[in-house]
Amino acid sequence: MNIDMIRASAARAGGHVRRTPLLNSHFLDEIAGRRVWVKPECLQHTGSFKFRGAWSALSALEPDLRAKGVIAYSSGNHAQGVALAAKMHGAPAVIVMPSDSPRLKIANTRAYGAEVVLYDRANESREEIGAQLAGERGLTLIKPYDEPQVIAGQGTTGLEIAQQAAEAGIKKAEVIVCCGGGGLTSGIALALEAEAPGFRVRPAEPDGFDDATRSLVSGKIEGNASALGSICDAIITPAPGELTFPIMQRLVGPGLVVTDQEALQAMGHAFNRLKVVAEPGGAVALAAALFRGDQIEGDDVIVTISGGNVDADMFARALQTLG
Amino acid sequence: MNIDMIRASAARAGGHVRRTPLLNSHFLDEIAGRRVWVKPECLQHTGSFKFRGAWSALSALEPDLRAKGVIAYSSGNHAQGVALAAKMHGAPAVIVMPSDSPRLKIANTRAYGAEVVLYDRANESREEIGAQLAGERGLTLIKPYDEPQVIAGQGTTGLEIAQQAAEAGIKKAEVIVCCGGGGLTSGIALALEAEAPGFRVRPAEPDGFDDATRSLVSGKIEGNASALGSICDAIITPAPGELTFPIMQRLVGPGLVVTDQEALQAMGHAFNRLKVVAEPGGAVALAAALFRGDQIEGDDVIVTISGGNVDADMFARALQTLG
Repeated sequence: MNIDMIRASAARAGGHVRRTPLLNSHFLDEIAGRRVWVKPECLQHTGSFKFRGAWSALSALEPDLRAKGVIAYSSGNHAQGVALAAKMHGAPAVIVMPSDSPRLKIANTRAYGAEVVLYDRANESREEIGAQLAGERGLTLIKPYDEPQVIAGQGTTGLEIAQQAAEAGIKKAEVIVCCGGGGLTSGIALALEAEAPGFRVRPAEPDGFDDATRSLVSGKIEGNASALGSICDAIITPAPGELTFPIMQRLVGPGLVVTDQEALQAMGHAFNRLKVVAEPGGAVALAAALFRGDQIEGDDVIVTISGGNVDADMFARALQTLG
Repeated sequence: MNIDMIRASAARAGGHVRRTPLLNSHFLDEIAGRRVWVKPECLQHTGSFKFRGAWSALSALEPDLRAKGVIAYSSGNHAQGVALAAKMHGAPAVIVMPSDSPRLKIANTRAYGAEVVLYDRANESREEIGAQLAGERGLTLIKPYDEPQVIAGQGTTGLEIAQQAAEAGIKKAEVIVCCGGGGLTSGIALALEAEAPGFRVRPAEPDGFDDATRSLVSGKIEGNASALGSICDAIITPAPGELTFPIMQRLVGPGLVVTDQEALQAMGHAFNRLKVVAEPGGAVALAAALFRGDQIEGDDVIVTISGGNVDADMFARALQTLG
């Protein structure tokens, strides 16, 4: 896992993965007390950065293997990223989803051309179902974060940040990244180590699900007590990955933790001042920049909005925080 | 008014005006029955394309004149565009606004550094107040659309569309533009005449406020019966401009008219599928692409989302259309 893999991934992504802009607003700067720069990956294909990693993995596969197809377990952003990336490569995709997933998510994943295999969360194992399908059809499993080509794809976000920050004259900054399993965080950290060594990456997480933050403190992989209880579903993972954690440990600064309510407020500010749609898990880094300024150093902070796949009801809750 | 002015405006804009991306979604393509490409000017500074024209006008002024300051009449997107562009040039700005403007708009315009002069809509003339202030202080009036450097600035949107469409392999397209006074529509039309002659520009307007559509049919400038009664406030102007209409007459195809309800639905789809915030007037072109497909030709349609300055209550109405 190194910068050359990220650069190679970026070369394969050209013309397929969207280059998202770097946004800012005087109003956000005022709240934060420093300049705030926002990388809105909600504008990426399928509405989250996950498409980058999925495209990276699909495009790196041997053509013979790719033609047989890929498989993923996810009811969320990774599912949609893999489904669309596979469709754009003309490769079959199987997504294994819990049968109680929201119908819209199932419908969307099918609309991106994937075969959805439903399983009963209580009585069936998705790993068994997946392994059987993979064996029968020769499908390649695309993991959501603990997979080098996926980390390389997420790292292309960091290459863009480095270039766009240089264009904006930013020489030194903290870069706050919405952190689930650590694919985006470690990918961006590797890219910036090479391209913008004055930048320091830091993970942002929701209160009660701060596994990365605690793992960075203790020096070993720590898990969350629960998998339920936050609205930030996109970034609730059991623990940092076996591949991502050592990278984070080497390169990434202390974590920042925000409440669900602060994530909703950040969604409101993103609506009001940037005109982009953030989902709760995608808004934790912006929330940290706005509401944890005392834990941040320097004149410039760069944050990811990692995704925007939020339903109307939840978004209405965010609008209500604007008062 | 020609393409060289637009190119010169683009050169002055470099590094200051945001280059907005060109977005798309398989889901929108399905509704429209053709490929839909979206230029989200809601992501522009101040949340609308108006910043382009304001920057263009400010940057074209003689430095001596600019140092004395500029003045604009507007309670909306043009006010904010002029205020921020003036601030970024270090020039004073006076914005003449009705005293019954929403407090948030007054506060925002002030936050962009402008001096806000309020007037009583019933008993005072903004033109008189403006002329007096302009005379006393040597301020230059920046008109919202009937001003060559403003049209040139809006035209830079067209230069970007031409380049981004070429990158996406689009050779022929209808380009639907949200149309108020016609600054954006005529600017884009001039840019595409030079840079993408296979493209045809068409204005989109709300039902009952289709002055450009009717003017293009009759061949002379037609006004609207009323100035009130649409939620699409950003694009409700009395009639096409003296400068913009001849350009539109020469270059622009038939208008497209949508209902307020269709504009709200388009806002919902922009939220759901593109993760951007459109205001009602900024969503009429997307609404035309989605709901007037029978009046559109070809495989590709490109639309502007001209702005995103919408309050939370109105946006909640758009979310409700998603059902």
